[in-house]
Amino acid sequence: MEAMLKLSPHLDIKSICYLSPKPMISVHQNFLPLTRSRVIMYSSSSPTPPGYLDNVRNSLIRQEDTIIFSLLERVQYSYDSVACDNDGLFPDDLDGSIAEYMAVQKETLYAKLGRYKSEEENPFFPRHLPRSILPHQQYPKILHRCADSININHKIWNIYFKEIVPELIKARNNDESGSSIPELVKAGNNYECGSIAVCDILCLQALSKRIHYGKFVAEAKFQDDPSEYEAAIKAKDRKLLLELLTYETVEATVKKRVELKAKTFGQVVKIDEDNVANPTYKIKPSFIPKLFEDIVMPFTKEVQVEYLLRRLD
Amino acid sequence: MEAMLKLSPHLDIKSICYLSPKPMISVHQNFLPLTRSRVIMYSSSSPTPPGYLDNVRNSLIRQEDTIIFSLLERVQYSYDSVACDNDGLFPDDLDGSIAEYMAVQKETLYAKLGRYKSEEENPFFPRHLPRSILPHQQYPKILHRCADSININHKIWNIYFKEIVPELIKARNNDESGSSIPELVKAGNNYECGSIAVCDILCLQALSKRIHYGKFVAEAKFQDDPSEYEAAIKAKDRKLLLELLTYETVEATVKKRVELKAKTFGQVVKIDEDNVANPTYKIKPSFIPKLFEDIVMPFTKEVQVEYLLRRLD
Repeated sequence: MEAMLKLSPHLDIKSICYLSPKPMISVHQNFLPLTRSRVIMYSSSSPTPPGYLDNVRNSLIRQEDTIIFSLLERVQYSYDSVACDNDGLFPDDLDGSIAEYMAVQKETLYAKLGRYKSEEENPFFPRHLPRSILPHQQYPKILHRCADSININHKIWNIYFKEIVPELIKARNNDESGSSIPELVKAGNNYECGSIAVCDILCLQALSKRIHYGKFVAEAKFQDDPSEYEAAIKAKDRKLLLELLTYETVEATVKKRVELKAKTFGQVVKIDEDNVANPTYKIKPSFIPKLFEDIVMPFTKEVQVEYLLRRLD
Repeated sequence: MEAMLKLSPHLDIKSICYLSPKPMISVHQNFLPLTRSRVIMYSSSSPTPPGYLDNVRNSLIRQEDTIIFSLLERVQYSYDSVACDNDGLFPDDLDGSIAEYMAVQKETLYAKLGRYKSEEENPFFPRHLPRSILPHQQYPKILHRCADSININHKIWNIYFKEIVPELIKARNNDESGSSIPELVKAGNNYECGSIAVCDILCLQALSKRIHYGKFVAEAKFQDDPSEYEAAIKAKDRKLLLELLTYETVEATVKKRVELKAKTFGQVVKIDEDNVANPTYKIKPSFIPKLFEDIVMPFTKEVQVEYLLRRLD
């Protein structure tokens, strides 16, 4: 552990970071401010410290909660996000959708505050992001430099609006929508489009972070046993890499756990009723493990494969 | 019901709205787009429709979930928000804190998208907000015109940072922080300040919305029996109004329900363990009912009293 701590009191570095609160990764990824007279650095040429992979896993597990919370917030609204765009609400002279406009503006703000200097964060609209206004902000790197070039957010964005939201709306418990909405409003409730865009962006950010965490997973696995991966990397054998990265029992555990979380966090909690014996759910609980099986885990593995393919560059 | 629906096909109105997904209020608060050839309007001189108060209550109940989810996200971070400001991370030439800078920028964006034209939304930094970029956007009003002048967000902001966050950190289950954080980092983990500000703003918005919903509660109660309130309003008798608005059994039910929600949503869900028999919580569950008892409900009643005092203006 000591070996990875380098004292660099001469650096004048301040940081605001966007990081999972889980520990070890953060230790490597960020500078402490100079006032503490030392800076934790980590070079990707060093081996990862003991417990690193466990901490990556802990972060992934906690991020499941964030994804489920954000989807539970989104599912309050019965309206499909794509339908918002088709209603002509947005001025013609602005390109894109309400969600896109909002995401670009928020990412501009976050870039000013240095969010995308963190290796944990990946913007959806990386073009033309402004520089950070925070002076002297630097982040040390735990990942190989190739990490910056891996961003599959365009795929996440598309599948979110084309598949995830429509399926989410189908999995929604409609009793939750309130039975007293007049039919007139039910027919076209695009009055919720602003709130929906806010929720969509939170869901997208949670999914993006979880999926791009594949970079840390891949780095940890690689460092754990480089020889296992080197031949496949040199041969650019995606299929073999995918096999090496896939642990079916782990994936089964993830699905079981997220279903349990969906049942727990997604309850409609009623007073004076036995919520445990007769639970009502905001989302059909099977939606969440299916989301992980069909999208989150395959996309995470895609990130891992892309990272490993460039790991020896 | 019919009486409140006025058809106004000549209006050219489009809307993006920021509304709770609960029904009846939205019906009154928002225009449907012209493409549907009719607009739902509601005048505050009309009586509220049947079920209106129930729908206000349903929205309040669902907003409890949002508050708890946002606090559960915030409590991932053990660092006090005020400490972030004291670390000198933010450039001297920018006033305020990281959270304030972020909130002002986000509210500027939301104002452009018309968020604060909704009677459900109240900005924390209302000065100098830009106009909406959405053409022809208008919202009909359900509340008395005095509603616009009632905004206690400055109090919510202050108590959030001075009391709620410090108590939340104390109520945090420290096992959740991961035992492998090196002491060096534990000593000063301000590397999380960017993420913390994001969470703080979501918590503040959820609290603000729930508290300012007092306007709808007060309007519903007033319309239900104006004579009950008129004497106290004319006498400007805050104490009597507060008594008229207070239902101790309802408040006890709210506290019981939010504690149940805190225990349900706040579980650390573990696989292969009996989470029901041996639950672990991210936040000590008693924190949530105390928050409602000490802050959310009194502040909501303050909004109600202020609204009623001006209801006959």
